[in-house]
Amino acid sequence: MSTAPNLISKNKCFGGTVNFYQHQSQTCNGEMRFAIYQPPQAKLERVPVLYFLSGLSCTEENFMVKAGAQQLAAEYGLMLVAPDTSPRNTGIVGEEDDWDFGAGAGFYVDATVEPWASRYRMYSYVVHELPDLIAEHFPVQPDKQGIFGHSMGGHGALICALRNPEQYKSVSAFAPIAAPRRCPWGQKAFTNYLGSDPESWRPYDASELVLIAGYNRPILIDQGTADPFLEEQLLPEVFQQACETVGQPLTLRFQEGYNHSYYFIATFIADHIRYHAAALCS
Amino acid sequence: MSTAPNLISKNKCFGGTVNFYQHQSQTCNGEMRFAIYQPPQAKLERVPVLYFLSGLSCTEENFMVKAGAQQLAAEYGLMLVAPDTSPRNTGIVGEEDDWDFGAGAGFYVDATVEPWASRYRMYSYVVHELPDLIAEHFPVQPDKQGIFGHSMGGHGALICALRNPEQYKSVSAFAPIAAPRRCPWGQKAFTNYLGSDPESWRPYDASELVLIAGYNRPILIDQGTADPFLEEQLLPEVFQQACETVGQPLTLRFQEGYNHSYYFIATFIADHIRYHAAALCS
Repeated sequence: MSTAPNLISKNKCFGGTVNFYQHQSQTCNGEMRFAIYQPPQAKLERVPVLYFLSGLSCTEENFMVKAGAQQLAAEYGLMLVAPDTSPRNTGIVGEEDDWDFGAGAGFYVDATVEPWASRYRMYSYVVHELPDLIAEHFPVQPDKQGIFGHSMGGHGALICALRNPEQYKSVSAFAPIAAPRRCPWGQKAFTNYLGSDPESWRPYDASELVLIAGYNRPILIDQGTADPFLEEQLLPEVFQQACETVGQPLTLRFQEGYNHSYYFIATFIADHIRYHAAALCS
Repeated sequence: MSTAPNLISKNKCFGGTVNFYQHQSQTCNGEMRFAIYQPPQAKLERVPVLYFLSGLSCTEENFMVKAGAQQLAAEYGLMLVAPDTSPRNTGIVGEEDDWDFGAGAGFYVDATVEPWASRYRMYSYVVHELPDLIAEHFPVQPDKQGIFGHSMGGHGALICALRNPEQYKSVSAFAPIAAPRRCPWGQKAFTNYLGSDPESWRPYDASELVLIAGYNRPILIDQGTADPFLEEQLLPEVFQQACETVGQPLTLRFQEGYNHSYYFIATFIADHIRYHAAALCS
């Protein structure tokens, strides 16, 4: 049994509610925050739950206020959960120095290098502690979970699903960091959180994991062609190649002229919600 | 002829583009910013244009990134224009001291009291300079204009339409400051921008204007019942009473449980876009 999370604010939205919570995380040894959208159906019955992992510098708020997901979640009866992207205010020196590492940039790994190892454990938080908390305190069907995300959070969604195919019945991503071992953002974060040996990074690289995962369910990825991070940081073609190697079903859509912003996400969010609903609401 | 505005950023969204511009405003004697959504139809033909005025502390960005209006604007072929809520960086002492006055709080009036009078002229900017600029540099039908807004911007939309019924073919508002002469926000702003004589405030109070305007077109207002500003600051019942007095058609909808946030706006934005489209796209 976990302590009930503390409600910070609530907002009615499309007949349901967008609520913000804080709670004491055992995994991360301190306070964590998340946002949750409970569709109107959740007043009457348990509903499937879809996790969204946000990108660098985001908090638990960005997705809820910018993506426009609630309308579709209300239509299909999906709970939406968006955790913060890292622990914050841990007291670790340098935590706020970089926008692409530390606070706001947990990279969905369990850090093994101090001083990060005791607090920055976003992988276990997202995969274990948070779903347990949600299942205990909100009317969800814990056996009907999907996950998606954007950029760093697209990377997070892919690795969570590939490592836990039974837990996540569906996965999709917007402009994910698809091969973090090979890009500057990933190399910087993994070196600092996991150490300098690239072998230790493999369990957190979707393009490596897919080679051994046997995920068996189709994966949906949208990628804007005008995304300034596409060529250097995101590398979806590496993931696509790996999927082809092992026969992993992948729908990778290059969306002409779209960039890395939430204007891109909002444009295609309905497709993603429907994709997850098809897997979770049957 | 006005100088073309400078493009700051562009973002493809629902087949059109959300662009941000800055330009030198003659009315406000300095730089102003606005955001514009050009729907896909605008690539082929001139389209009607719908202005959105934002609330206290907002910039030209909030509406574009939070309201979820682009999907419907793309469906109906409407241009959306969202100006900033005031001049900024004018050098006026105290401009940034208050969140409900000065920068981010222009209140859509032409200030008559110095030091504000030379720069804070949002009424003329919104009603004259900006529409002229838009008509000159973007593919709009200038005779098909609508206007809506939120809170302080709902007040702004109502007064612009009531004072210029031929210019604005449609008007609606989310949680407007509907009787600013009678509420603390309005009294503070009007005293500072217009002076201490409440008679000088009448031309900027929708509940006064409607008594003499003869607007003749129906007005749509949505108001959340859980809005913390409802009773002290917004006073829609004063506006409703004034409309009844003169037979002004008004649809005032109290939305149960909704607050003052963009979660409220996003929930009902489709209704408002359809309302304006019915008036502008025929």
